[in-house]
Amino acid sequence: MALNPQYEAIGKGFVQQYYALFDDPNQRASLANMYNVESSFMTFEGTQLQGSVKIMEKLNSLRFQKINRIITDVDSQPMFDGGVLINVLGRLQTDEDLSHAYVQTFVLKPIEGSFFVQHDIFR
Amino acid sequence: MALNPQYEAIGKGFVQQYYALFDDPNQRASLANMYNVESSFMTFEGTQLQGSVKIMEKLNSLRFQKINRIITDVDSQPMFDGGVLINVLGRLQTDEDLSHAYVQTFVLKPIEGSFFVQHDIFR
Repeated sequence: MALNPQYEAIGKGFVQQYYALFDDPNQRASLANMYNVESSFMTFEGTQLQGSVKIMEKLNSLRFQKINRIITDVDSQPMFDGGVLINVLGRLQTDEDLSHAYVQTFVLKPIEGSFFVQHDIFR
Repeated sequence: MALNPQYEAIGKGFVQQYYALFDDPNQRASLANMYNVESSFMTFEGTQLQGSVKIMEKLNSLRFQKINRIITDVDSQPMFDGGVLINVLGRLQTDEDLSHAYVQTFVLKPIEGSFFVQHDIFR
């Protein structure tokens, strides 16, 4: 498969869509559709998880209701299987906690005209 | 190709090896061997570069002689082509500048029993 020339727009669009769901406690569970049952990996603050079931167990266990998120940078690169590598830098404040810097890396894998998240590293 | 079960050791070993060369001005030019002439991508502080020639032009243009680097976290994941996704968080002080946090993401691609850097994002 060829490099996708739309990688920049795909990266920015994905990040917007992903966090719109993540940051809304009523919609967070629907992130399940973005991960594959077997072939998605997540590393969440050093904890390794594989497959959408375990990943969603983790995401659904996050208790905060209110998220203030500021995206500082989104860097994307096209991958040779048609996927997109995305690096997000930002700041995050959950409920009444102090805000802190975070970084999240996604690898989007193409599937039938769309993408799923094959790799996800959050720190 | 299968997932490489050694991804954790490969990630940590690569990071150590890469920065040992990067941080030594006399060895920095030898990083050229880690990139492919055509199929390596680098995003350096938002600037997109493709191929080892342009990537090394950029790296060789960095003027600092002294680097203090502290690696905070190295998160690695195995990829389905046998490669490894690596996320590095750290702090960097060059010459007499103030130290600052940085993040660098690598995608290592397997080639003949070794790896080259297919993707590199630095912020």
